Amino acid sequence: MQIAETLLIAIDELSKLPGIGKKTAQRLALHIIKSDKESAEKLAKAIIDLKEKLMLCKKCFNLSEDELCEICKNPKRDQSTICVVEEVSDVIAIEKSHEFNGLYHVLGGVLSPLMGIGAENLRIKELINRFHDEEIKEVILALNPDTEGETTSLYLAKLIKPLGVKVTRIARGIPIGGDLEFADEATIGKAMLNRIDL
Amino acid sequence: MQIAETLLIAIDELSKLPGIGKKTAQRLALHIIKSDKESAEKLAKAIIDLKEKLMLCKKCFNLSEDELCEICKNPKRDQSTICVVEEVSDVIAIEKSHEFNGLYHVLGGVLSPLMGIGAENLRIKELINRFHDEEIKEVILALNPDTEGETTSLYLAKLIKPLGVKVTRIARGIPIGGDLEFADEATIGKAMLNRIDL
Repeated sequence: MQIAETLLIAIDELSKLPGIGKKTAQRLALHIIKSDKESAEKLAKAIIDLKEKLMLCKKCFNLSEDELCEICKNPKRDQSTICVVEEVSDVIAIEKSHEFNGLYHVLGGVLSPLMGIGAENLRIKELINRFHDEEIKEVILALNPDTEGETTSLYLAKLIKPLGVKVTRIARGIPIGGDLEFADEATIGKAMLNRIDL
Repeated sequence: MQIAETLLIAIDELSKLPGIGKKTAQRLALHIIKSDKESAEKLAKAIIDLKEKLMLCKKCFNLSEDELCEICKNPKRDQSTICVVEEVSDVIAIEKSHEFNGLYHVLGGVLSPLMGIGAENLRIKELINRFHDEEIKEVILALNPDTEGETTSLYLAKLIKPLGVKVTRIARGIPIGGDLEFADEATIGKAMLNRIDL
């Protein structure tokens, strides 16, 4: 097989990305070759910038261009509420909902004895320290509703409640646009239990 | 929504790639952030190199790092056979089959009156010129088996045959690993017509 080395290298590098196979990588590489030079340079710069410009906010561990992220720096955000999430992607998801105006705390995962992840591997100590430094009134736990997420939520609630801080958890129920018929029993059960007055 | 600008730019640039939506772009960007700096730099360099190092071979219009591509430069390839394809991706597909040892000619598309693509928009003149400069004995037409591909094949055959060059077309039939039951009528019909002696 005699293919230009440069193309093979690009296909190889692109196919290292998650969910990108060799065929997709080839299509992407050929697309880049056909597009103008400026687009390719902008894409390459954006990739480099991800590593060079971004760091973790020293307060909430969200992605940030400074020591403190845009959210922690913003005086208009409610400084008394912290939403605890697993990953940075969850911050993005919640920000997109435009329903939360408080601060965040990115745990960096959930407790998982099977994977060898204990409390010391997560940013739990850093979360607890924030109750001393900041005036927190409520902690909203927004971890994924799986076994590890639930366990971690209970663990955190036990840890935080004695500090006199209100601990809540985001609601489980039928997703908007979802269909009762296709919802699983556990979700329907939770939705029934957590019904609200109209 | 308060997300680091660098991340938003990267998501935006990545989602310009074909088949990559905003969600996938976000997953890719977060993956790059988590991977080591060297990987990100290699990926960015590979993308830049695609535009900086690659050009079209001046003989066959395949992708190349030099004036002539690896295939045209290779004296071990059969210099008397040219395989005509639509795009560079077709050269890669045929090279991967390891069944062809001749030269290529990348047309750059197919005739398509509806899209306003005529003979003058393709590299047909350049193909014809090769019959004067090189000692070509056979031209294999390997265009896609759709209406435009078939029309272009017939057009090229009419043009090339009078020059005393043998013109063939790659076989249509049931793909290897395919299932007769699920093959369409046109493919089965062609496979019947083009049956071979055993």
